[in-house]
Amino acid sequence: MEFKENTDFDLIGLGEVMLRLSPPNKEKISQSETFEKNAGGSELNVVSGAAMLGIRSAIVTKLPENKMGHFIRNKIRYGNVSDDYIIYDHSPQKRLGVYYYESGAYPRKSSVIYDRANSSFCSLSLDELPEDIYAKTKIFHISSITLALDPSLKETAIKMIHKFHEAGAYISFDVNYRASLWSEEEAKKTVEAIFPYVDFLFVSEETSRRMLQRTGTLEEIMKGYADTYGCTLIATTRREAVSPTHHNFNSKIYMNGNFYEEEPYNNIEVIDRIGSGDAYLAGVLYGLIKYGTPERAIEIGNALSAVKNTVAGDMSASSIEEIESVIKSHKATGHQDEMVR
Amino acid sequence: MEFKENTDFDLIGLGEVMLRLSPPNKEKISQSETFEKNAGGSELNVVSGAAMLGIRSAIVTKLPENKMGHFIRNKIRYGNVSDDYIIYDHSPQKRLGVYYYESGAYPRKSSVIYDRANSSFCSLSLDELPEDIYAKTKIFHISSITLALDPSLKETAIKMIHKFHEAGAYISFDVNYRASLWSEEEAKKTVEAIFPYVDFLFVSEETSRRMLQRTGTLEEIMKGYADTYGCTLIATTRREAVSPTHHNFNSKIYMNGNFYEEEPYNNIEVIDRIGSGDAYLAGVLYGLIKYGTPERAIEIGNALSAVKNTVAGDMSASSIEEIESVIKSHKATGHQDEMVR
Amino acid sequence: MEFKENTDFDLIGLGEVMLRLSPPNKEKISQSETFEKNAGGSELNVVSGAAMLGIRSAIVTKLPENKMGHFIRNKIRYGNVSDDYIIYDHSPQKRLGVYYYESGAYPRKSSVIYDRANSSFCSLSLDELPEDIYAKTKIFHISSITLALDPSLKETAIKMIHKFHEAGAYISFDVNYRASLWSEEEAKKTVEAIFPYVDFLFVSEETSRRMLQRTGTLEEIMKGYADTYGCTLIATTRREAVSPTHHNFNSKIYMNGNFYEEEPYNNIEVIDRIGSGDAYLAGVLYGLIKYGTPERAIEIGNALSAVKNTVAGDMSASSIEEIESVIKSHKATGHQDEMVR
Amino acid sequence: MEFKENTDFDLIGLGEVMLRLSPPNKEKISQSETFEKNAGGSELNVVSGAAMLGIRSAIVTKLPENKMGHFIRNKIRYGNVSDDYIIYDHSPQKRLGVYYYESGAYPRKSSVIYDRANSSFCSLSLDELPEDIYAKTKIFHISSITLALDPSLKETAIKMIHKFHEAGAYISFDVNYRASLWSEEEAKKTVEAIFPYVDFLFVSEETSRRMLQRTGTLEEIMKGYADTYGCTLIATTRREAVSPTHHNFNSKIYMNGNFYEEEPYNNIEVIDRIGSGDAYLAGVLYGLIKYGTPERAIEIGNALSAVKNTVAGDMSASSIEEIESVIKSHKATGHQDEMVR
Amino acid sequence: MEFKENTDFDLIGLGEVMLRLSPPNKEKISQSETFEKNAGGSELNVVSGAAMLGIRSAIVTKLPENKMGHFIRNKIRYGNVSDDYIIYDHSPQKRLGVYYYESGAYPRKSSVIYDRANSSFCSLSLDELPEDIYAKTKIFHISSITLALDPSLKETAIKMIHKFHEAGAYISFDVNYRASLWSEEEAKKTVEAIFPYVDFLFVSEETSRRMLQRTGTLEEIMKGYADTYGCTLIATTRREAVSPTHHNFNSKIYMNGNFYEEEPYNNIEVIDRIGSGDAYLAGVLYGLIKYGTPERAIEIGNALSAVKNTVAGDMSASSIEEIESVIKSHKATGHQDEMVR
Amino acid sequence: MEFKENTDFDLIGLGEVMLRLSPPNKEKISQSETFEKNAGGSELNVVSGAAMLGIRSAIVTKLPENKMGHFIRNKIRYGNVSDDYIIYDHSPQKRLGVYYYESGAYPRKSSVIYDRANSSFCSLSLDELPEDIYAKTKIFHISSITLALDPSLKETAIKMIHKFHEAGAYISFDVNYRASLWSEEEAKKTVEAIFPYVDFLFVSEETSRRMLQRTGTLEEIMKGYADTYGCTLIATTRREAVSPTHHNFNSKIYMNGNFYEEEPYNNIEVIDRIGSGDAYLAGVLYGLIKYGTPERAIEIGNALSAVKNTVAGDMSASSIEEIESVIKSHKATGHQDEMVR
Repeated sequence: MEFKENTDFDLIGLGEVMLRLSPPNKEKISQSETFEKNAGGSELNVVSGAAMLGIRSAIVTKLPENKMGHFIRNKIRYGNVSDDYIIYDHSPQKRLGVYYYESGAYPRKSSVIYDRANSSFCSLSLDELPEDIYAKTKIFHISSITLALDPSLKETAIKMIHKFHEAGAYISFDVNYRASLWSEEEAKKTVEAIFPYVDFLFVSEETSRRMLQRTGTLEEIMKGYADTYGCTLIATTRREAVSPTHHNFNSKIYMNGNFYEEEPYNNIEVIDRIGSGDAYLAGVLYGLIKYGTPERAIEIGNALSAVKNTVAGDMSASSIEEIESVIKSHKATGHQDEMVR
Repeated sequence: MEFKENTDFDLIGLGEVMLRLSPPNKEKISQSETFEKNAGGSELNVVSGAAMLGIRSAIVTKLPENKMGHFIRNKIRYGNVSDDYIIYDHSPQKRLGVYYYESGAYPRKSSVIYDRANSSFCSLSLDELPEDIYAKTKIFHISSITLALDPSLKETAIKMIHKFHEAGAYISFDVNYRASLWSEEEAKKTVEAIFPYVDFLFVSEETSRRMLQRTGTLEEIMKGYADTYGCTLIATTRREAVSPTHHNFNSKIYMNGNFYEEEPYNNIEVIDRIGSGDAYLAGVLYGLIKYGTPERAIEIGNALSAVKNTVAGDMSASSIEEIESVIKSHKATGHQDEMVR
Repeated sequence: MEFKENTDFDLIGLGEVMLRLSPPNKEKISQSETFEKNAGGSELNVVSGAAMLGIRSAIVTKLPENKMGHFIRNKIRYGNVSDDYIIYDHSPQKRLGVYYYESGAYPRKSSVIYDRANSSFCSLSLDELPEDIYAKTKIFHISSITLALDPSLKETAIKMIHKFHEAGAYISFDVNYRASLWSEEEAKKTVEAIFPYVDFLFVSEETSRRMLQRTGTLEEIMKGYADTYGCTLIATTRREAVSPTHHNFNSKIYMNGNFYEEEPYNNIEVIDRIGSGDAYLAGVLYGLIKYGTPERAIEIGNALSAVKNTVAGDMSASSIEEIESVIKSHKATGHQDEMVR
Repeated sequence: MEFKENTDFDLIGLGEVMLRLSPPNKEKISQSETFEKNAGGSELNVVSGAAMLGIRSAIVTKLPENKMGHFIRNKIRYGNVSDDYIIYDHSPQKRLGVYYYESGAYPRKSSVIYDRANSSFCSLSLDELPEDIYAKTKIFHISSITLALDPSLKETAIKMIHKFHEAGAYISFDVNYRASLWSEEEAKKTVEAIFPYVDFLFVSEETSRRMLQRTGTLEEIMKGYADTYGCTLIATTRREAVSPTHHNFNSKIYMNGNFYEEEPYNNIEVIDRIGSGDAYLAGVLYGLIKYGTPERAIEIGNALSAVKNTVAGDMSASSIEEIESVIKSHKATGHQDEMVR
Repeated sequence: MEFKENTDFDLIGLGEVMLRLSPPNKEKISQSETFEKNAGGSELNVVSGAAMLGIRSAIVTKLPENKMGHFIRNKIRYGNVSDDYIIYDHSPQKRLGVYYYESGAYPRKSSVIYDRANSSFCSLSLDELPEDIYAKTKIFHISSITLALDPSLKETAIKMIHKFHEAGAYISFDVNYRASLWSEEEAKKTVEAIFPYVDFLFVSEETSRRMLQRTGTLEEIMKGYADTYGCTLIATTRREAVSPTHHNFNSKIYMNGNFYEEEPYNNIEVIDRIGSGDAYLAGVLYGLIKYGTPERAIEIGNALSAVKNTVAGDMSASSIEEIESVIKSHKATGHQDEMVR
Repeated sequence: MEFKENTDFDLIGLGEVMLRLSPPNKEKISQSETFEKNAGGSELNVVSGAAMLGIRSAIVTKLPENKMGHFIRNKIRYGNVSDDYIIYDHSPQKRLGVYYYESGAYPRKSSVIYDRANSSFCSLSLDELPEDIYAKTKIFHISSITLALDPSLKETAIKMIHKFHEAGAYISFDVNYRASLWSEEEAKKTVEAIFPYVDFLFVSEETSRRMLQRTGTLEEIMKGYADTYGCTLIATTRREAVSPTHHNFNSKIYMNGNFYEEEPYNNIEVIDRIGSGDAYLAGVLYGLIKYGTPERAIEIGNALSAVKNTVAGDMSASSIEEIESVIKSHKATGHQDEMVR
C-alpha cells in the first residue's frame, strides 16, 4: 500500500467525544455513590488507540469551553492525540454529551443510557476548520454514528469525506449501526452513498445482513463490498459473550482478493468491553500504516482488541511492545511463563 | 388468590435489622483497613426486595435511638420500606446488632461472625406497636431467625402471627434454620406450632430432612406440608456453589396440587451472595400479589435471586423492568445482545 | 399560627431534582478521575431537611424512567421524602438535569456548571398530578428557580400555587434569583405577581435591592413585603465568606410586627456550602410547624443551615437531636465539652 | 530515677482494646457508606506510643478468638507492642468491644457511641496470666476506665496493681474519669484506694475538682497528691478546642518539689484528636525511662500529644526522630524551613 | 525430626525486603493514579507466613533509616516477625529497593519491573549482626536471590549459612533462580557449593533441568539431591496458569526415602499470586517444626500456598485455624457448606 | 520584548521528571496503605504550567523504556507538553527517579525523601538530541537542580545553554539551590558561570545572601544581577508558612530599571504546596511571551503560584480563564460573589 507522504498526521478522525460516567466495581447506576469519569467516542478511541501504538493522530471535534470541555481535552492529549483540531463552543447552549455505563455480571447485562442530544459537537460547521487540514493526513476515519447525530452535522461530515478523499487521504469507515440513533432505511441510504469513497471498510455480519440487506455467505458479502465499491480492505469482527466477564473474539479481513483470519482469542477476561471494537480498528489501521500487510493488520487488530477488554475505560492503553508480546504468546505453543519479569 | 383489599401495605415483615460490616474487594477481616457498611436482615431483605419491584411494604423492628439507628433507618427508607413501625430504644443498654462478613475466593470460603446478642430488637414488646397495624397488610412475613433470638421475643412474634392471621393477612414463613442460634429440637417444636397458621412456606430440602425430620422424595415432603398444615404454597430453593464466585440456582414450588420449576440459572457471577435467598422470597411474594400465579411467582423469584448475587449488599436493588428483561433473556433462545443500549 | 389539620403531609415542594456531580477532596473538574454523585434541587433540599427533623413531606417532580431516575428516586426516599408525587417520563427525549460542582480553596473559588436544559422536569404538566394533592399539605413550597426554567412549566407552577392556596395550604416562597436563568425584569414581574399568595417569604437583601428594586433600610424592606402583600413571615439570611472554607452566617425574621435575630455563627468550617441556604428554610418551616413561634423558627433555621455546611452533598442530614444540641452550645457560655460522648 | 533493671519490658499496660469504626473524611455515621477500622484503647495507646519511640512494651488484654480478634492482634503488633500477654476468648459469648466515632466540624461536634458491654475483656481473670509477668517490667500502666468496666475485672485489676508494685515496678495511673461508665462517688472511692500505690499520676484539673473534689489552686492540688499519697510525678494537661479542627495544648508536671511547664502548642491542625491524651502519657513515660528528667518527659509528652492530633487513628505513629525535630522547631526562634528535605 | 531446643526463634530468614507498588483493581502501571503499598521479599514472605501460623520467627535485613524504612519495619512487625535483626542504614546512599507489579487479565500477562540496585540491603555486613544470633533458631532460611544481588553480600550470606549450620540450626534453601539477576552458570556454581549444608531444599523441576542440568525423571532428580548432598527433605511445586486469574497447584516432597503428594488444588481463584510459592515453604517449614511429618508439611504447605493466591499482597495472612479448615474441605467428599457461619 | 518568531515552541525545558509518591489525606509515609502517583520535576512544572495557560512547550528529558517511563510520558502529554524530545533509556540499568512526599499538619512538617541517584536522566547526552532543536523555541528554561545531579550531565546542560543562546533563544534560569545535592561553593561557581547567558533570572533572597553571598538590600541585590550579568528580568518570591496549610505569598520583579510588586496573597489554603514556586515561573514566562510586560508577568505569576497551592500534584492545572478570574478578584474591592455560577 502507498500512503500519502510527508503528512503531519497519519490518522485524523472526526467524531463526538463524550463524558462516560460509570459506577466502580460493577456497582449499579441506581445505587453507586460515585462515578468513574472517562472520555469516550468511537472515532477518538480509534485514533488514540493507534497513536498509543506509535503513529501521529488528531481528532476533529467540538467541546464546550468550560471545565468539562477542558477535562475531555486533557484526556485527548493523554491519549496521545493532537488537540489542534478541537473547536471550542462559547455559546450559552454549549454542553458536553454524556453517557452512563453500567457493567453487568451474569445474569445482569451491561447497559448504557445516552444523554447526548444537543451537544456542542452537533453544531460543528466546516468553516470552523482550517482549510489546510485536508492535506495533513494519510487516513481520515469516521463512523456512521457521526452521520446519525444531526442533519446539519451529517452534511458537514460528508463534505469532509469528499475533501479528504480529494486531498489524497484514504478513507476509513466504520459502519457502526446504532438503532437508537436512526432507522435502518435512513442509515442504509446514507452509508451506501459514502461507500464509493471508502478505502477501509469495517462492518459486522449482522449489520450487513439486517441494515444493509446483504445476502450470501459472509465471504461473499465481504467480497461484494470490494467488487461494488472498490474498497481496498473489508474487515468484520465477531464477538461471543460467554458471559459479561468472558468473551471470545476473532475477525476476518478481505484484501487483495484474499481472506485473512487468526485463531480466536477465547475466554478473554473482560474488565471493560467498551471500545474493544474501536481498538480493533486502531490496530488494523496501525498495521496498515506501519507494515502495509493484512497479516500484520489483523494480528495487531485482534490483539489490541482482546487486550482492550482487560483495561478500564473506552480508550486503549497499550504500547506496541505490549501488543507484540501478546501476539507472540498467542502464536506460541508449549509452556509459557505466566508472568513478564 | 384473593388478598385482603384496601390495605395501606401489601407486605409487612417483622425482624431484626443488623449492621453488616464487610471488607472491600475480597480483603480479609483480619487485614482490611476499611469496612463497607450495609443494613441487613432476612425479613427486611424480603420486604425491601418486593418493595423495590413496586409494592408497598413496612418493617416492624426496634433500633437504638442514636446515629447508628439512624443509619439503619435511612437504609430502610432507601430500600423503599416504610419506617412507620420502627420502634426506637432509648434505654442505656440500647445497641445495634452487628455481623461481619468476609467474602471468599476458592479455596478460601466466605465466612460470617455474628455479634447480635442483647440487641435492642430483642427487647421489642407488643405494646410498643399500634393496635391497628394488624389490619393494614395483605401479607405478614417472618422467618424463624426472629423466633430463635430471645425467649420473650419469641412470644411476641407468635402473638403477632396470630393477630395478623386473625385480621385476615396471609402468613409468609421462612424456615431459615441457623444452627448457631438454637438446637434442632427446639426449632422443630417451635416452627411446627406455627405451621398451621402459615400460608406461604419456604423451606429447604436439607432443613426438611434434618431439622424437621421429613422423609420421602422432595415432592412428597413439599406436598406433605400442604396436606398436613393447609399451606397454600410451598417453595424450596437449591443453590450449588461451583466456587465462591460461581453459583447455580433453581427452585421448586408446590401450589394448587401442582409442581412448578424453571430451567436453573447456571454460572451466576457472584459478587455478593448474601440476601439472594431472601430475594427469592421477595420475588415470589411480589409475583403472588401482583399476578396471583405460581408461574409468575417462580420466574420472578428465580430471576430476582439470581440477579441479587451480582449486587453488593444484603438488599436487592432491582426494578421490575430489570427483572422482566432478565426473565426474557433467560427464556430466550438464539442470539442475544450482550448489552442493553 | 394555625395550620390545616389532618393532612397527610406537612410540607409539599415542587421543583427540579438534578444529579450533582462533584470531584472528591477539592480536586478540579478538569482533572479528577471520579465524581461523587448527589441528588440536589432547591425545593427538595428544603422539604428533605425538614423531613429529616421529623415532619412528613413530599416532592412534586418529574424524572426520566431509567436507572438515573431511579438513582434520584432512591436519594429522595433516603432523604425521608415521599415519592408519591414523582412523575416518570417515558418519552425518548427524557433526560435528567445535571450540574457539576467544583469546591474551591482560597484563592480558587468554588464554581458550578449547569447542564439542565430540556430536562424531563420541564415537561411536567398539571394533569399528571392527582387532583386530591392540593388538600394534602399544611405548606406548599416553591422557589423562583422553578418559574425560570421553562415558560410552560411557569404556568403550571403558578396554577399549583393558586390551587394549594385555595385548598388552605400556606405558601412558602424562596425568591432565589439566578441571573443565569432569566433577566431581572422578567423575574421581578413574575415574582411580584406571586407575592400576594405568599405566606412565608424568603428573600435576600441583595435581591430585594437589585432585582426587586426596594430601597430603605433592610428592616423597612422586610416590613414592606408584609405591609404590601400580607406575608406572615419575611426572612432574610446573610452569609459572609471569610474564605471558601470558613463562613459566617446569620439571619433576620420579621413576623407579627417584630424583628428576630440571633448571634451569628462565625467561622463555620465549610465542607460543602451547597444547600445551606435551603437548610435554613427547612429549619424555619419545621420550627413554624412544630412550635409556631419565630424564636424557635430562627434558631432551628440558623443551626440547621450552619450545620449543613459541615456535611457533604446538597441535602441536610441532621436529626432534631443534633440540632437541639448545636443550639444549646450556641447559646451556652463558659466551658463546653469538645466532644459528645 | 531508678528503674528496675534487666526487665524484658519497659512498660506493660492492662486494658481493653476496642475496634474503632469511623466514617472517612468527616462524613456522618448516619450517612457514610464505609468505616475506617482502627484498634483503640487508652492503655494500648499509651504503651504503643512509647514503644514506637523506642522502648519495649506489652499489653495485657483479652480478645475473641476469631477474625476480629486477629485484626486487633495484628494492629497491636503493628504498634510495636508485644502480643505475649493477649488472652484469647474461646467461649460462645466472645465479643470484641466496638466504638463508633464521628469527627466534627464547627458547629457540629465530634461524637462517640460505645458498644462495649459484655466484651471478652470483661471476663479476664488473674489465672489466665503467667505468674512471672509481674517481674518483667519497669512500669505498669493502667487507667481508671479498666476499673469501671466490670466489678470482677476491677478486682482483677487491683490485684495486678498490687502484684506489679510488689515486684518492683512503678505504677502509672491515668485518672481518666468517664461519666458514662460509673458515678463520681464510685470512681472517687475506687481511685483513691489506688493512689497510695501510684508513682506516676495523670489527672486533669476538672476531674480533680469535680470527681475528686479537690480545692485550691491547680498547683496546690497537684502538690497535694504528692504529699498525701507519695506520688513521684503528677501531670495534668490542658486542651482548648478553638474548633473541632484547631486545638491548643499544654501541660504541667510536678516532680521533686518543682513545677515544669512549656510554651503551649497553639493552633494544632487536628486531623484526629482521639488518643492525643494517651500520647502525652506515652511521651512522658518514655522521657522518664530514657532520660529520667521531668524536663525531657514534659517536652516529649507535649510534642507527641500535639503531633498525634495530626495523625488518623487512636495510636501514635511517631518515631523519636520526628518528635525531636518537632521539639526543636517548637523551641526555635527566627526563620524556619517549612519542609524537611 | 529433632530440632534444636530452647531457642528464642523457630525460624530466622535472611533477605531483602522491598517496597512493592502495584495499581489497584488490575489497572495498568502506565495509567493508574494510585499504587497500593506492600512489603515483600521472598525470605520475609516465608518467615512471616510461618509466624502467622503460630511459630516465632525473625528476619535479618537492612533498611534505610527513614520513613520508608519505618514503613517496611511496621509491615514486618505486622507479619508477626521480630524486628530484632533489622539493621538500619544511616548512610547518605541509603535506599529501599522497589518493585512495581502489574496484575494481568487474559490475554494481558502480569508483569514486574525491578528497581532494586544499590539498595541498603546490599551493604549488609556480618559485623552488623550480634554474634549470638546463630544459636537462636531451629531453622535458618535463605533463597538464592540473596546470593545473586551483590558479590560482597554473597560472601556474607555464605558465611551466615556456615555459622548457622555450625550452631546446630537446620538450613532451608530455596533455589529460586531469577535469570534477570545472574547467569545460569554462576548460579549453578554458587548454589551447588551450598547444597552440602542444606537440610530442606526447595527447587522446581524446570530449574533442576535447565539451570542445574539434572536429567532423569522428576523423582530421580529429587532423590538425587538427597543422595548426593544429604538433604533431608526435597520439595518441588507445580503451578499451572489456566489464566492470570485461575491457577492449579500441587507439590511433591521426597523425605525419608518416600515421595508424598496430594490431590492438586484446581481452579484457584487468583487475586494475587505473588508470594504463593513462598507461602508453600512457610507451610512446609511450619509443618515440620510443629509436627515433624512430611504428610502434615505437604498438606499445610499446599493449603497455605493455595489460599495465599486469594489474598492481596506478598505476605500470607492465614491463621492455622483457617488453613486447617481449608485442608478439611480439600479432603472432604460429598456436600459441603459454601460458607463458614 | 522581542521574541524569536515562527518557532515551533514558545518554551523548551531541560530537566529530570520523577515519580512522586505521596500518601493520601495527610497520612504518614510510614503508615499509609496507598500512594498517589504524580509526575514532577521543577522544569517540567514550569513548562507545563505555561502550556496549560496556552503556549506551546516541550521538555527535554530521559526516561526508562518501560511501563514506568510510559506513565511519566502520559503525564507529560496530559500536562500539554510535547513529548518530541523525550529520550528513552533501553539499558539494563534504566531507572526512574522517585521521591516520596509527606504532607504535614502543624506541628508535623511536610517532608521529602529522594531516591533519584543513577536515574536514566543522568545518562542523557547531547548526541541523543536532534541538532535542529536549538532553533525551535523562544525560551529555554533550566534550573540548577539539573546542574547538580551528575558531572557529565552538567557539561551536557551547559552546552545546551550555549547552543540555545547562540540560536537566539532567551535563557530562563531558576537558581533553585538544594543543599542535599551539592555544596554552596560548587553551586556558586557553577551558576555564576552561567549568569552571563541568563535573560530571566529567578533567585530567592535567602539563596542570594547565603549561597551567592550577596549583600545589601534585596533591591540592591536584584539590581546587581542585572548590572553585572545583563539579565533582563530578575524575580524573587517570598513565601511565609503560617502553618503547613496556610501560606502567604508575594514576589518582586526588577525589569527595565524598575521594581514591580503586588499585594500579597494571604492565607492561601494550601492543599499541595509542591510546585507552587515553579508555577510562579510558568506564569511569569507566559506573561512575558504573551504580553511582554512585567506588570502582566507578575500578576499572572503570583496568581498561578497561589492557585497551584490549592491543587494536588506537582503540576499546575489552571487555564488562563481561571487565572484571570483570580486576578480580578485579587484586585477587586467591595462585595464579591463567593462562587462562580
